[in-house]
Amino acid sequence: MESFFSFLEKRVEDCSSLLCVGLDPHVSDLSVSSAEAARDFCLTLVKQTAPYAAAFKPNAAFFEYFGAEGWTALKQVIEAIQSESDRLGSMIPVILDAKRGDIASTAEAYAQSAFDHLGAHCITLNPYLGKDAIDPFLKNREKGVFLLCKTSNPGAADLQDLLVSGGLRADGETRPMPLYQQVALLAQSWNTQNNIGLVVGATQPEALARVRATAPNLWFLSPGIGAQGGDLEIALKAGLRQDGKGLLLPVSRGISRAANPGLAAAEFRDEIWHIRRSMMR
Amino acid sequence: MESFFSFLEKRVEDCSSLLCVGLDPHVSDLSVSSAEAARDFCLTLVKQTAPYAAAFKPNAAFFEYFGAEGWTALKQVIEAIQSESDRLGSMIPVILDAKRGDIASTAEAYAQSAFDHLGAHCITLNPYLGKDAIDPFLKNREKGVFLLCKTSNPGAADLQDLLVSGGLRADGETRPMPLYQQVALLAQSWNTQNNIGLVVGATQPEALARVRATAPNLWFLSPGIGAQGGDLEIALKAGLRQDGKGLLLPVSRGISRAANPGLAAAEFRDEIWHIRRSMMR
Repeated sequence: MESFFSFLEKRVEDCSSLLCVGLDPHVSDLSVSSAEAARDFCLTLVKQTAPYAAAFKPNAAFFEYFGAEGWTALKQVIEAIQSESDRLGSMIPVILDAKRGDIASTAEAYAQSAFDHLGAHCITLNPYLGKDAIDPFLKNREKGVFLLCKTSNPGAADLQDLLVSGGLRADGETRPMPLYQQVALLAQSWNTQNNIGLVVGATQPEALARVRATAPNLWFLSPGIGAQGGDLEIALKAGLRQDGKGLLLPVSRGISRAANPGLAAAEFRDEIWHIRRSMMR
Repeated sequence: MESFFSFLEKRVEDCSSLLCVGLDPHVSDLSVSSAEAARDFCLTLVKQTAPYAAAFKPNAAFFEYFGAEGWTALKQVIEAIQSESDRLGSMIPVILDAKRGDIASTAEAYAQSAFDHLGAHCITLNPYLGKDAIDPFLKNREKGVFLLCKTSNPGAADLQDLLVSGGLRADGETRPMPLYQQVALLAQSWNTQNNIGLVVGATQPEALARVRATAPNLWFLSPGIGAQGGDLEIALKAGLRQDGKGLLLPVSRGISRAANPGLAAAEFRDEIWHIRRSMMR
């Protein structure tokens, strides 16, 4: 059985892309405030950008906003991505950006909701509750998770930057390390089935580089380029793995608000791939 | 405008109860696997236990499990609690156990989903993303949040027990403290509108007592009595505030799986209140 990240790597090769297209149907971007409008907004984006997308990332919050109808819309959007995959002959992974995190039977229910009911291939999770809250999502190695590690918002400093001691240590490391680095160490040690990655903002290259040094093999989901304004070349230098993979760059508004979203996605894809190639020489 | 916790305290007085009735329609507890069965399971529980409930706590995961129909069921359950409140002439707060956590506009959408669309009065949140991820839920002080602090699962040790330095310090404190204590300090400092509480498991009384010493004024939501087997008297000694309030004790299966859930709720309510009274003398 293949692992989630082997699926993702296959897709990255198929489309020469590290771009993850974010599907954020924020109500202010819709013609009318309805679940149908949210769905249509996403369906159009999927159709226009699928050839350039290494993955799609629907954000659960903007669907939940519309209640039961929003939930139906989310399911339809994921089905449409599946259809596009079939049409293109290349499976495009769907990462449900839901940042869930709960214990035991509750985590089980969230996993079934995301993977079985909605049909997502991967989900973002919050690591604060520890390993047993993540396990229910890892059982099927074809499904993956990205654990929040270092987020790009100002409040990230409140907990993630605190210096911790007494946890897992990397080789030879004795000094206290930031909490987010401890999360990276734990994730690396938990990743026995190649289905755990990390969310590490692209806007703070020093942190990104530190996490890369700590977890040399993991995939990162690194928001911050595009609308959030991170510098693409610096982010790629800090975050790519030695094999030129391992970094998935989500862009939402930078594509959805462009005059031509398909063209914007193609340009993001090409720019990322171009810089990457120049670094691989 | 009143704050969420002033509403809760009014209800605690109205019903002489610190019991929070958990609404966990786990599929294994339902006669058939359907959103309607989940809804009916909860509606029956609400009807039977409302007179003894200081609050109700529906768990979002077990509704999400049923997709859009589950979302509809959740909304109907919250509406039914509102009707029971009207009938009893005493507002019973609804705490949506969803453990959300995301940044900026995304958190905004989750807040609107929970408070405006579903009609919940309070939500459980994950603190890992920091203050700005919590702010959108605090804007209306009639609505409240419980931040995960120290959970009762084994994996809680992975991050929550790590010793941190360099964060907020309590008076005179200089040594490193566990991360969960840092969360308690931050929550206490953020609670300027009386609408932030903490989730602190009742199964580890030393941790509960430590958090109480750190945050003497906050409300705690403390799972672990009932099916999870924490000792009630020890938990009350460790967690109650000096005014004999500040501790909400959720029980789910210990009530829903009882032969007579109404009677079980009444007994939990009475036992808690009895121990509390003997401590207040």
